[in-house]
Amino acid sequence: MIGVAVVGYGYWGPNLVRNFWETPGARLVAVCDLRKDRLAAVRSRYPAVHVTGDFDELLSDPRIDAIAIATPAAAHFKLAMKALMAGKHVLVEKPMAASSDEARRMLEEAARRRLVLAVDHTFVHTGAVRKMRDLVQDGLGDVYYYDSVRVNLGLFQRDVNVIWDLAVHDLSIMDYVLPERPVAVSATGMSHIAGEPANIAYLNLFFESKLIAHIHVNWLAPVKVRRTLVGGSSKMILYDDLEPSEKIKVYDRGVTLNGSSQGNGEKVYQMLVGYRTGDMYAPHIDVAEALEIELRQFVECVQRNERPTADGNAGLRVVKILEAASQSLAERGRVVELEHMRRIA
Amino acid sequence: MIGVAVVGYGYWGPNLVRNFWETPGARLVAVCDLRKDRLAAVRSRYPAVHVTGDFDELLSDPRIDAIAIATPAAAHFKLAMKALMAGKHVLVEKPMAASSDEARRMLEEAARRRLVLAVDHTFVHTGAVRKMRDLVQDGLGDVYYYDSVRVNLGLFQRDVNVIWDLAVHDLSIMDYVLPERPVAVSATGMSHIAGEPANIAYLNLFFESKLIAHIHVNWLAPVKVRRTLVGGSSKMILYDDLEPSEKIKVYDRGVTLNGSSQGNGEKVYQMLVGYRTGDMYAPHIDVAEALEIELRQFVECVQRNERPTADGNAGLRVVKILEAASQSLAERGRVVELEHMRRIA
Amino acid sequence: MIGVAVVGYGYWGPNLVRNFWETPGARLVAVCDLRKDRLAAVRSRYPAVHVTGDFDELLSDPRIDAIAIATPAAAHFKLAMKALMAGKHVLVEKPMAASSDEARRMLEEAARRRLVLAVDHTFVHTGAVRKMRDLVQDGLGDVYYYDSVRVNLGLFQRDVNVIWDLAVHDLSIMDYVLPERPVAVSATGMSHIAGEPANIAYLNLFFESKLIAHIHVNWLAPVKVRRTLVGGSSKMILYDDLEPSEKIKVYDRGVTLNGSSQGNGEKVYQMLVGYRTGDMYAPHIDVAEALEIELRQFVECVQRNERPTADGNAGLRVVKILEAASQSLAERGRVVELEHMRRIA
Amino acid sequence: MIGVAVVGYGYWGPNLVRNFWETPGARLVAVCDLRKDRLAAVRSRYPAVHVTGDFDELLSDPRIDAIAIATPAAAHFKLAMKALMAGKHVLVEKPMAASSDEARRMLEEAARRRLVLAVDHTFVHTGAVRKMRDLVQDGLGDVYYYDSVRVNLGLFQRDVNVIWDLAVHDLSIMDYVLPERPVAVSATGMSHIAGEPANIAYLNLFFESKLIAHIHVNWLAPVKVRRTLVGGSSKMILYDDLEPSEKIKVYDRGVTLNGSSQGNGEKVYQMLVGYRTGDMYAPHIDVAEALEIELRQFVECVQRNERPTADGNAGLRVVKILEAASQSLAERGRVVELEHMRRIA
Repeated sequence: MIGVAVVGYGYWGPNLVRNFWETPGARLVAVCDLRKDRLAAVRSRYPAVHVTGDFDELLSDPRIDAIAIATPAAAHFKLAMKALMAGKHVLVEKPMAASSDEARRMLEEAARRRLVLAVDHTFVHTGAVRKMRDLVQDGLGDVYYYDSVRVNLGLFQRDVNVIWDLAVHDLSIMDYVLPERPVAVSATGMSHIAGEPANIAYLNLFFESKLIAHIHVNWLAPVKVRRTLVGGSSKMILYDDLEPSEKIKVYDRGVTLNGSSQGNGEKVYQMLVGYRTGDMYAPHIDVAEALEIELRQFVECVQRNERPTADGNAGLRVVKILEAASQSLAERGRVVELEHMRRIA
Repeated sequence: MIGVAVVGYGYWGPNLVRNFWETPGARLVAVCDLRKDRLAAVRSRYPAVHVTGDFDELLSDPRIDAIAIATPAAAHFKLAMKALMAGKHVLVEKPMAASSDEARRMLEEAARRRLVLAVDHTFVHTGAVRKMRDLVQDGLGDVYYYDSVRVNLGLFQRDVNVIWDLAVHDLSIMDYVLPERPVAVSATGMSHIAGEPANIAYLNLFFESKLIAHIHVNWLAPVKVRRTLVGGSSKMILYDDLEPSEKIKVYDRGVTLNGSSQGNGEKVYQMLVGYRTGDMYAPHIDVAEALEIELRQFVECVQRNERPTADGNAGLRVVKILEAASQSLAERGRVVELEHMRRIA
Repeated sequence: MIGVAVVGYGYWGPNLVRNFWETPGARLVAVCDLRKDRLAAVRSRYPAVHVTGDFDELLSDPRIDAIAIATPAAAHFKLAMKALMAGKHVLVEKPMAASSDEARRMLEEAARRRLVLAVDHTFVHTGAVRKMRDLVQDGLGDVYYYDSVRVNLGLFQRDVNVIWDLAVHDLSIMDYVLPERPVAVSATGMSHIAGEPANIAYLNLFFESKLIAHIHVNWLAPVKVRRTLVGGSSKMILYDDLEPSEKIKVYDRGVTLNGSSQGNGEKVYQMLVGYRTGDMYAPHIDVAEALEIELRQFVECVQRNERPTADGNAGLRVVKILEAASQSLAERGRVVELEHMRRIA
Repeated sequence: MIGVAVVGYGYWGPNLVRNFWETPGARLVAVCDLRKDRLAAVRSRYPAVHVTGDFDELLSDPRIDAIAIATPAAAHFKLAMKALMAGKHVLVEKPMAASSDEARRMLEEAARRRLVLAVDHTFVHTGAVRKMRDLVQDGLGDVYYYDSVRVNLGLFQRDVNVIWDLAVHDLSIMDYVLPERPVAVSATGMSHIAGEPANIAYLNLFFESKLIAHIHVNWLAPVKVRRTLVGGSSKMILYDDLEPSEKIKVYDRGVTLNGSSQGNGEKVYQMLVGYRTGDMYAPHIDVAEALEIELRQFVECVQRNERPTADGNAGLRVVKILEAASQSLAERGRVVELEHMRRIA
């Protein structure tokens, strides 16, 4: 039985608590939050769980093997480092940290102590994203592009821009799904509310191959959109997370190159590029709750000392892109190189 | 009665011919094409119309007051200049020319000879786009962003990239709808078929104000999308050209700034930024054929020596952006300034 | 403070319990269910609430003023009658009872004892249905038709057919929204699984005016549909409960009769019947949870001895139609008169 | 070469004329209409085609082998009989005639003279409907239900009710797709405009098996819907004719009966009825124009003396149902038996 504590009972924390409560192999020992009313909410719902406003109390509690951190991102580094240094395994909310430097130090600390460091990239545990990864790895052919739109009328964040808030989802999905790592990023965007961070942004991701990726995030859209297109040489995917039952559609469509290139003029061209418009199918998607799967895996990784699907390396890669994109945004889209991405594995 | 000749009876020419045939005040005198089978098609359909393979014949025909040019873009400049020099009014397909230099010379020639030079930016004559312009000018408040997606599994063009083929529509609509001109552009994209022009591209347009615009075009998408979002401080628009009857939706949604900014912390923030989620309405849209309205206006402009909605200036502005965007695309998204855009009016 | 007990902790009971727990003015005293594992679930979630397998215990408990019954419909009558006879106010799940005779006796018992008898027609407390009622009462003109489709791949019920399971929702909404009561009903349908009740059915409802209503319910549909069309002489409504934000759309569309009917032939006809295709709008809908509003109202009705929106009369009217429709279904759609519907008010 | 004349150049006639003009093996000889302006329209568009206001002229013209009748339905019988008696093959618009008696006499006359009598059930020649027939015949399992909705804000017809105008499409599709013929029909509906025929109607079709069919037609709907659901024991189909590219969706969904029926109670039930929710796929649909395929087939049938897909028998079956449904509608949905449907083949 792995003893678990959850830190931060705000927006996401209650989901972690509810799921850890049900996860086989896990025992929810304590919940920590600075706000008394939040602790009261835990107490009335889970009378058997210890509540505290003092994080350090968790560190010295021998019943606690692992700590899940669901505070604002600015606090991730400090809390995670303390937890690791106290010998606790860590599951940390996304984004993993407020900078790639922080993320890297967390990663190194966990490695040094042979502790599990998992990042809560929840989406990579959904049936839809796992299906998408399977399709990209087998069936899509060469991947040409990855295009994602994540917009809605969303709560403004004061401390981070829309990239850190929304694009973090797309980047963590992309990191899991694509066979290649980006080598550079550029971003444009704007803040329309004086004094606030950018509320709309467009990211371009460059790769060594001909693959390109693009992410559009917006807190000021009149409609909610969650749509990703992945184009390949053999097939193409439309992933619409708002579809209740057909989240993934696979299209047997694309361009076919055929014949030789001898001769010239229109005829030859017609010979070379043809269109293929075949069937579409929507595979049945596993609808198990992603967080349930993720926490189950986290507990197993702690038990067997294995690496989770979204480990500290995945978390660091995503933070590196977020950081570089924010830098690019401040310079009207200057391309920022992402160094050593391939080494983070 | 204005005598008209149409040059080029390929993809779009037949629409011009069919509509000029019905336009009050116009008399379709001749159709010119180099391909004999195309001329035969005209002859069987419009026995009364003169057909010819010799463009110069049109120039000396005194029955012809205006020439509509629907050839590939590479030929626009040469044909239009000849027509203008022969004293003919000109309606030219979009894009107006293959370069901004050509477009400018066409513009100057028409001005010098006091001839009408219209560009066939068909979309600006649709009910939906005219409604969108009305809304942007009155009701949207400050315009925050203009975001357009125009993707489908489309015919590859050999001679132009996807920007010249698809984004030209969005740029001509944007030029008509927005109250401001862009000052710079950047574009990223890729060609996935060796030896062919870019088949996917993303354009960013920068303005002096906080307005930003973005256009996504793609010849290799599994689904067809024609969607534009325009966000303003008071209202927001969703324009979906594939909707059969509700092409324009207006949302009473957005951010409200209220109260003073004194103090600090979360409370003040909550005071300052509030959300507004009100009604949506879809105004009734005039469904008259855009080309019919456009040609009717062209004939009236010739008769009264007036400027059409999409004149040579609009054509030039659009070509300047296309040109700069293609240049940027070749340099991985370097920002290219658009000079003197405000003077082209 | 009104003391409340909930009977039946199966599919819907947990929602009643959760909401009563939060309802101002209510105190959740006890939960009753025959299954021990269900009671254990209550105990772990609400340690302060008394749990019991003995319904009669509730009757003699002076802390309990009202009993909410969420058992299978077959048990409603017996439990509700016992509760009423013990002087408890009652909130009963829909359908109110297994027959109109039962429903009538419950109604009479409650009236005799001046107790509140509410039926849990949850939908009539949603923002969408309340808006629809407002529109029907003011703005739609004469109501021409009410057409509803409620289909999906749904759990087969062993004891009731699809009408009692699904159409009960539409009938309770219709009862609330329409200004008129039906005078007769017919229904056709089929059971495709040997030995099981009908899994698909179509209901026609006849009125004294020209209004007609139709309901299509189906447990064997590949897609989920929840759509209601209400046509009026001035406006029309589309209510799509699966739309996340625009559940109600109001269309300014219809037929206009104009001019006099003198003369004959096509010209006169054209004069008489014209089409109107105007704007559509989607009013902002209150998204508060319907059950929360309903329970709050139930508590207020008990406190002030008032009648709830969906009282025993509404429940009886719906059961009468369900009963008559099932009878008609067994006779290949024979029209069954609904007597005295107007008196049940 | 088959010489063809088209009678009636109103709403649909121009489509027949345009397509016959292009159909290999056919020569469009003449067009007949009583209205001079309609004939003038033909003359300017097809100068080589003879135009006339005198139907009898066609009968004696030896160049004419076949006559296509696109007049209002009331005139079909008289014109078709004259044509057949003059030895001409006939293609007649749907509905085939104004009564089943007329249809039967046309059928008999054609049979007696060994002439082709085709009915223009255009939809049965679309790629979507042909695909649906293939699926129903192989893959769907036992067909459980056929449910169709065809509603919009449509032109009121003065002389026929909405069943004859809209349901005729569904009935002709159903006749082609289903493996069984209906044995009885009932219909309810209403006229909301005084003195006009019913503008909304619901049809039930009864079969000897457990198959049931239902058709909803409405001229007064705010939105356009063209949706058909076909449920089978193995698979289910959604046919949405307004979908631009995925008109047919096939769902691997349904109920599975498994295990034996011994024992009783809930457990057994759970054993017996299980749910299957598998993949969905949208097969690629042939997009060739249906009318082109149909006329090509008509010409071939004339040349080879074969029976077309939609022959006089199909036309008669559909008219019999229309007739019985109208009768039922006038009697508040009384079930009207359809006799001898199986013999009409």
